[in-house]
Amino acid sequence: MTELDVAGLQRRLAEFAAARNWEQYHTPKNLVAALSVEASELVEIFQWLTPEESAAVMTDPGTAHRVRDEVADVLAYLLQLCEVLGIDALAALSAKIDRNEERFPAPKEE
Amino acid sequence: MTELDVAGLQRRLAEFAAARNWEQYHTPKNLVAALSVEASELVEIFQWLTPEESAAVMTDPGTAHRVRDEVADVLAYLLQLCEVLGIDALAALSAKIDRNEERFPAPKEE
Amino acid sequence: MTELDVAGLQRRLAEFAAARNWEQYHTPKNLVAALSVEASELVEIFQWLTPEESAAVMTDPGTAHRVRDEVADVLAYLLQLCEVLGIDALAALSAKIDRNEERFPAPKEE
Amino acid sequence: MTELDVAGLQRRLAEFAAARNWEQYHTPKNLVAALSVEASELVEIFQWLTPEESAAVMTDPGTAHRVRDEVADVLAYLLQLCEVLGIDALAALSAKIDRNEERFPAPKEE
Repeated sequence: MTELDVAGLQRRLAEFAAARNWEQYHTPKNLVAALSVEASELVEIFQWLTPEESAAVMTDPGTAHRVRDEVADVLAYLLQLCEVLGIDALAALSAKIDRNEERFPAPKEE
Repeated sequence: MTELDVAGLQRRLAEFAAARNWEQYHTPKNLVAALSVEASELVEIFQWLTPEESAAVMTDPGTAHRVRDEVADVLAYLLQLCEVLGIDALAALSAKIDRNEERFPAPKEE
Repeated sequence: MTELDVAGLQRRLAEFAAARNWEQYHTPKNLVAALSVEASELVEIFQWLTPEESAAVMTDPGTAHRVRDEVADVLAYLLQLCEVLGIDALAALSAKIDRNEERFPAPKEE
Repeated sequence: MTELDVAGLQRRLAEFAAARNWEQYHTPKNLVAALSVEASELVEIFQWLTPEESAAVMTDPGTAHRVRDEVADVLAYLLQLCEVLGIDALAALSAKIDRNEERFPAPKEE
């Protein structure tokens, strides 16, 4: 499976959009809107659940499929946004974790 | 840089939360809410821009930093959600692209 | 039409929820999640439109109905949130406009 | 207080935007984005709270002020959207409650 890395998936998404002439719609402004809509579709699955019910959401196969599907949609728009803006998503996250480790020092173990 | 793969970043995020005893807050319900809030912080950067201005957003260093930072936050919560739910984000996206290729066939080239 | 004021609509929404025993789901946390999901359903209608297309959205009767429907859903959850938290939405907005008039003074006419 | 009805507040918001020459930014597409961003700022207040903590959110004066402020922002963008699209928000909500009463009949009392 050579595709299962971020760069490969990002390339497949770019080719998918190009083959359908959808690039014209993929302004950064539109992609962040689409990203937030997909994030809300994830929220919709959980909105009326108790914390406990939310933790058990993968035990129902239909709901598990829906959660995986929305996770994929969020990641798809995030990677397409990074593609058009020239952002390396993994490097951005790594740098952010570094900053957070300085900003929120872990309590010392006793 | 051995960390710059998704699995490595996911592990760093898990250790970060564990070291601060934040796992108690990381129910799937809370994580999807936080994910959608971060996606909206990306939208906020673009909300009053024209499509053309939105395409040029990385030319200003301050805005570029802010966009990268919010991209990192979205990815961080997405990976933490996948961690608590046992979802392989890259496999989910790959399967979704497969389905979309069947659902939206590319027009034939002439 | 005695119902067409905010207080009357808020009362109808409260009675609707009570008659269906849905009040148990209406924690403030759940209501703000539902509110944000409905706001995103509004965004979804506009996400791929140009600014010009977005301005003409009410000329298509089907889309106009959909927009009105989502506006209603956003207002419904906002009023239900205000009901459970004891917030007067109109007074909150009036106070906010007052503050904004001080914070962003209008430029003097010449 | 003659302002405390929806039509009066909608007029104040329109005058506020006109006096600052902000109408150019108020396309429906931009206003729905801003609405969803404000809805997420409400979610942010509640995202790590338990259901019980979320129900007690107005007991802290600082948090109560913040909630009222975000409620006002959501309502402000909703009314500005209705203004530019020619939607009567209260009529839209009244019609929606009518439809919901048919769609979800209340269980009969015994």
